[in-house]
Amino acid sequence: MALPPLRRLDDLLASAVARHLKVAVVMAGEPNTLEALRLAHEHGLAEGLLIGNGSQIRSMAEAVGLPPPAFSVIDEEDPRRATLLAGQAVARGEAHLIMKGRISTGALMAGLLQPEAAFRTGRRLSHVAVIESPGQDRWLAVTDGAVHIAPDLSQKVEILQNAVDLVQRLGAEEPRVAVLAALEQVNPEMPATLDAAALAKMGERGRFGPALVDGPLAADVALSREAAEVKHVRGPVAGEAQVLVAPCIETANVLIKGLQYFAGARWGGLVVGGRVPVVVASRADRRDTRLYSLALGCRVV
Amino acid sequence: MALPPLRRLDDLLASAVARHLKVAVVMAGEPNTLEALRLAHEHGLAEGLLIGNGSQIRSMAEAVGLPPPAFSVIDEEDPRRATLLAGQAVARGEAHLIMKGRISTGALMAGLLQPEAAFRTGRRLSHVAVIESPGQDRWLAVTDGAVHIAPDLSQKVEILQNAVDLVQRLGAEEPRVAVLAALEQVNPEMPATLDAAALAKMGERGRFGPALVDGPLAADVALSREAAEVKHVRGPVAGEAQVLVAPCIETANVLIKGLQYFAGARWGGLVVGGRVPVVVASRADRRDTRLYSLALGCRVV
Repeated sequence: MALPPLRRLDDLLASAVARHLKVAVVMAGEPNTLEALRLAHEHGLAEGLLIGNGSQIRSMAEAVGLPPPAFSVIDEEDPRRATLLAGQAVARGEAHLIMKGRISTGALMAGLLQPEAAFRTGRRLSHVAVIESPGQDRWLAVTDGAVHIAPDLSQKVEILQNAVDLVQRLGAEEPRVAVLAALEQVNPEMPATLDAAALAKMGERGRFGPALVDGPLAADVALSREAAEVKHVRGPVAGEAQVLVAPCIETANVLIKGLQYFAGARWGGLVVGGRVPVVVASRADRRDTRLYSLALGCRVV
Repeated sequence: MALPPLRRLDDLLASAVARHLKVAVVMAGEPNTLEALRLAHEHGLAEGLLIGNGSQIRSMAEAVGLPPPAFSVIDEEDPRRATLLAGQAVARGEAHLIMKGRISTGALMAGLLQPEAAFRTGRRLSHVAVIESPGQDRWLAVTDGAVHIAPDLSQKVEILQNAVDLVQRLGAEEPRVAVLAALEQVNPEMPATLDAAALAKMGERGRFGPALVDGPLAADVALSREAAEVKHVRGPVAGEAQVLVAPCIETANVLIKGLQYFAGARWGGLVVGGRVPVVVASRADRRDTRLYSLALGCRVV
């Protein structure tokens, strides 16, 4: 059943996406993770396959109000083996999403990339955040603020493609992608503008399917039709971007967190490119970020 | 007369800062620039020393409603000579600020750096934006989103110092400076974290005077006490940053423009480090950005 295009993040929580998927949580003995799962369960989104210290998980689940029918437990205290079990549960069709519990993102990713985890697809893993600010009537996908530190052009190709695939699943049939820089001129002294120009031309040549890709674009031109007009930047992306591809991890990460903590934005994020999406919300993330991340994962699997 | 510490951007427009300064506008025949000057004049902030094509300037000034007592004109149509005249007017004490009209930022900066402009101070020029989001009860200074593309450590030292000096003039006696990265760990694979650690230690050793400098910090920890607590990052900067030093031009630029166009933030910005501040608002900047930039300049000269 095709879902309507995503308009607001809260749509992710609406009953139309209630699919009661199973989320494999790696090292699940972590209260914030279990609380997010409780909220997801209350919204009818997902149940848990909780991997970790079984007795600890059961007592924490009780403490956060996650009811026993909402989860099953696999007792495995070793983080690496717990990761492999999660991957294998996905491979067997017994889980549809993976979520990080009390394990570092690096260890989780390294474990999932082991052949035994049966998680690799031949594509690169990358992070995409879907973000919404108060008073704005649109969401934005921002990539990559969490996995690739300083991606080269070939890595950016895959990062861009992963984001395009994600937003297509959110209902954007021809995703409008802005490859960000600090300005629109292609400047040999600014490597971000060279990669952006190359990605734009690849998009024009059909490399990313129906996606409309333009760059280099500064964020004002990517987001504001008025700014695009004043700067005489035309095309289907200027002022209408749905995906922002950042030149480096700091640019995406600071944008997401700046919007969240200095403008009250809400967001969810996923690592995509593997067999299923992975929720890697960090310790400091707020409860709603975990919930939106889970909901986003449930929407796109 | 010492002004009270800046609390809101609108305080920049309040009568307490009405000093009737003179702004030398280079290539002033540009309607948006003259309109910003009209607004600044109406707020009692500044009058114009308008350099450019005299008859064009006079007719545009009339068109935007800038009254003749609010400006004088120097007829000089050559951009380079116009720039030198602005610098010289400042050197003679006949102007207190410089503003860009119909000239590229690059050409203006190059002209001001000529010895004849008498504008150099031996310090590096860098850009600082002071930004405020709806519903937030604080402003932030963000640097450098406009001048330095990929500053090395010694350039970051000067960029940081320039921002510290600016916010001290806004009333922050011990500015709290976060050197941004995507996380708090010092990671040899992430150059931004190495520079941040070095800058933090330099700050601890007194290099930046009374400023409190910490890094690497992700933006969540820089801006949110709660995030800092969860991540166990302590110190006087975590959750309380007043200055964000970005690792590269894209990070600062995308943050400023993302907040403006995806969260309704307002801001003003200056190039500082020269004899006087320079307003370099770009074509696409909104009217309020030009006005806040002028007001910021009037406050800090």
